[in-house]
Amino acid sequence: MGLFTRDIKTMNDLFVHQLQDIYYAEQQLVKALPKMAEKASEPQLKRGFLSHLDETKGHVQRLEQVFKMCGTEARAVDCPAIDGIIEEAEDTAGEVADKAVLDAALINAALAVEHYEISRYGSLIAWAKRLGRNDCISLLQKTLEEEKAADKKLTTVAEAQVNLRAVS
Amino acid sequence: MGLFTRDIKTMNDLFVHQLQDIYYAEQQLVKALPKMAEKASEPQLKRGFLSHLDETKGHVQRLEQVFKMCGTEARAVDCPAIDGIIEEAEDTAGEVADKAVLDAALINAALAVEHYEISRYGSLIAWAKRLGRNDCISLLQKTLEEEKAADKKLTTVAEAQVNLRAVS
Repeated sequence: MGLFTRDIKTMNDLFVHQLQDIYYAEQQLVKALPKMAEKASEPQLKRGFLSHLDETKGHVQRLEQVFKMCGTEARAVDCPAIDGIIEEAEDTAGEVADKAVLDAALINAALAVEHYEISRYGSLIAWAKRLGRNDCISLLQKTLEEEKAADKKLTTVAEAQVNLRAVS
Repeated sequence: MGLFTRDIKTMNDLFVHQLQDIYYAEQQLVKALPKMAEKASEPQLKRGFLSHLDETKGHVQRLEQVFKMCGTEARAVDCPAIDGIIEEAEDTAGEVADKAVLDAALINAALAVEHYEISRYGSLIAWAKRLGRNDCISLLQKTLEEEKAADKKLTTVAEAQVNLRAVS
């Protein structure tokens, strides 16, 4: 889709555009998560990032299936939102000296990513329902559930471990 | 905080940094929401954006109170995440010709903003608890509740009105 060309004419176009946007976002996360795991000190957090990396690779594949169902080529468009979230995470992490504080900052960054994805998959599912694309819904719903579970797990690690260590 | 200077040494530093980040984000939203209201066609959505604009101005003031409680000057730092989310919203809106589809895109953008804020206020409240900053919690909690309510309202408008019109 080109800027100022008003290529989005229908809800289906908007749906496909959003698929392309989240496809880019998931690909960026596949690159970002190993770096976050490397920076994390708390073993549970490190494992959490690596296990979510595996899930994220699965999300990319699911999106490719959804593109196929829609009869359109799997293509990514720039997603300034995820670029901004990742840039902010890297900037903040670069400013933190203490390892436990860095873990808290990494969780905060990951929670922002999860919330971004939860909002996008939520819209995609709502639009798929309206468009009668029931074939796509169950795949998108599986990913949404995994994002929500990742959000909960991160919050639990934060509450149980990282924030406590960081102020001790 | 300067890049690469590792100015964030403690959880309290991270807390203040996050306050500065969300302070910038709320200020950007005070600028963005009137533009979104102007672009919206559905009267309920237009009113929703304008009423959330009033709330957002209140969030800025609450943050100023929190800064004061922390004995630190109210200051904004760049927040590439919110810049990215707003840039993406404007890019997408610029590509949509149909008014009802544009309303759906605007709601999608606003939901991403709400989720970003929900994740940030969630972290701030968790950190304030750990830091024993109970004085700040109730103010941050009030804003978090308003962001969650805005998220629900937007989803209801989307389900009830906009998505239906957009595919009709």
